Amino acid sequence: MPRLSINQWSMKTTPCDRFIDAVARAGLDSVGLWRQNVAEIGVGRAAKQVADAGLSVSTLCRGGFLTASTPAARAEALDDNRRAIDEAHALGTDTLVMVVGGLERGQSIREVRRAIPATIAELAPYARQAGVRLALEPMHPMFAADRAVISTLGDALAMATASGDDSVGVVVDTYHIWWDPAVLDDIARIAQAGRLLSYQVSDWSLPLASNPLNSRGVMGNGYIDFAELTGAVAATGYSGKVEAEIFNESLWAMPVDDALALVKMRFDSLVAPYL
Amino acid sequence: MPRLSINQWSMKTTPCDRFIDAVARAGLDSVGLWRQNVAEIGVGRAAKQVADAGLSVSTLCRGGFLTASTPAARAEALDDNRRAIDEAHALGTDTLVMVVGGLERGQSIREVRRAIPATIAELAPYARQAGVRLALEPMHPMFAADRAVISTLGDALAMATASGDDSVGVVVDTYHIWWDPAVLDDIARIAQAGRLLSYQVSDWSLPLASNPLNSRGVMGNGYIDFAELTGAVAATGYSGKVEAEIFNESLWAMPVDDALALVKMRFDSLVAPYL
Repeated sequence: MPRLSINQWSMKTTPCDRFIDAVARAGLDSVGLWRQNVAEIGVGRAAKQVADAGLSVSTLCRGGFLTASTPAARAEALDDNRRAIDEAHALGTDTLVMVVGGLERGQSIREVRRAIPATIAELAPYARQAGVRLALEPMHPMFAADRAVISTLGDALAMATASGDDSVGVVVDTYHIWWDPAVLDDIARIAQAGRLLSYQVSDWSLPLASNPLNSRGVMGNGYIDFAELTGAVAATGYSGKVEAEIFNESLWAMPVDDALALVKMRFDSLVAPYL
Repeated sequence: MPRLSINQWSMKTTPCDRFIDAVARAGLDSVGLWRQNVAEIGVGRAAKQVADAGLSVSTLCRGGFLTASTPAARAEALDDNRRAIDEAHALGTDTLVMVVGGLERGQSIREVRRAIPATIAELAPYARQAGVRLALEPMHPMFAADRAVISTLGDALAMATASGDDSVGVVVDTYHIWWDPAVLDDIARIAQAGRLLSYQVSDWSLPLASNPLNSRGVMGNGYIDFAELTGAVAATGYSGKVEAEIFNESLWAMPVDDALALVKMRFDSLVAPYL
């Protein structure tokens, strides 16, 4: 069984149905899906196409954006997250990636962080009932203001624990956490707590893209030591899929079969040996 | 006595002699200088001009870039750092800001970090003899690969301690550390250890500039809570200067007197009240 799963945004510019076909054609058996891309063909049809192709769904991206300051916006965000949970269930994945949201100017990042566990606790029972685990994703600190106030694995674990729900977990994405001095210990602690829900890989390439969100590199095109991080994940006994999640204009410009072949080759040489 | 000091790169495009004049004209009494800008007129002349204008020098930027992997490049970097220490002494400042350097592709960030304390220990006696303290600057994790492998205040303190020299300290720069969940505790720990050498301010503005190094915003133009961070610094008893260090194309495009007036106004309203 291959360990590699292809996150849909690694091939973001490929229509959903062609993406699913291409992954199956590449001999892989798992995809990470994105809600807005699935919406192109509808959740029902996507679920059927994935099943017919013999694929499983490692994660759904994404819930979150739960830091709005007004009660109305917060209620709307919670509703949207319940829909995301429903979609995860319908697509047959047990993991919903949560990008918790950023700040408004004038808010204290510490206060916004403090409110996260209670908000997650409001969603967790609904997720649990759907057989879906909420996976908090710490993002690189360059996204702390606009995307996710969770910046470290340690903080993600603390918030998952503080939510009071055992099913809430954490995503380990190399791009976001490779620089963290505590990363090796924190991976172990997260797994020890039964909360290591997803391992995602991409490289830290420079220079940053003009839209920094799209700066992720194919493994081997940057500075991340995949042996060390993958070894730390494997040492915990993690046996799940490893998602290649690479937002990169060059990769998007390639024919999808070539892009998949490149990602698979780099995964096989730089990540798989340490699993 | 004003607490504000103006870092030279906030007015990077202004020639050194005119920068010194402009700061004095603005009624301020301190500058943070940069080696390459000082070199325009020479260290001796810069020292004299600063003294004649009644200014002190809060810090010199910068030493560091000490992570080269070959012995020859490392020896050259150590030599350059000794020259930087000499220049700091000649300019009459007791603080040399150290940007320790990044990675080469294929190096483990953990191994590069592990080597830093011993390298700093090689320089520390020379610095001590010159009456100069080496101030390790943790930089935002988006610079971990290319500028400084020290990404957190906690790690900077650990490395300063591990250098075995009491004179080695840490720079707290809001831009680099504002996102860190441990920042308030770490500021206290650094001061408790007698190692809080400089407090620098600028804001986290979005979007990032095309050169991310120049994304720093004037205080009030971004997401940083200066009350909280400045309060934490002040609570330690820190009584030194506060350097406005703002690399920003818009600020550089302004007439220097206007730029200084803007920085001073924002400092007075957003930082000074919490000192």
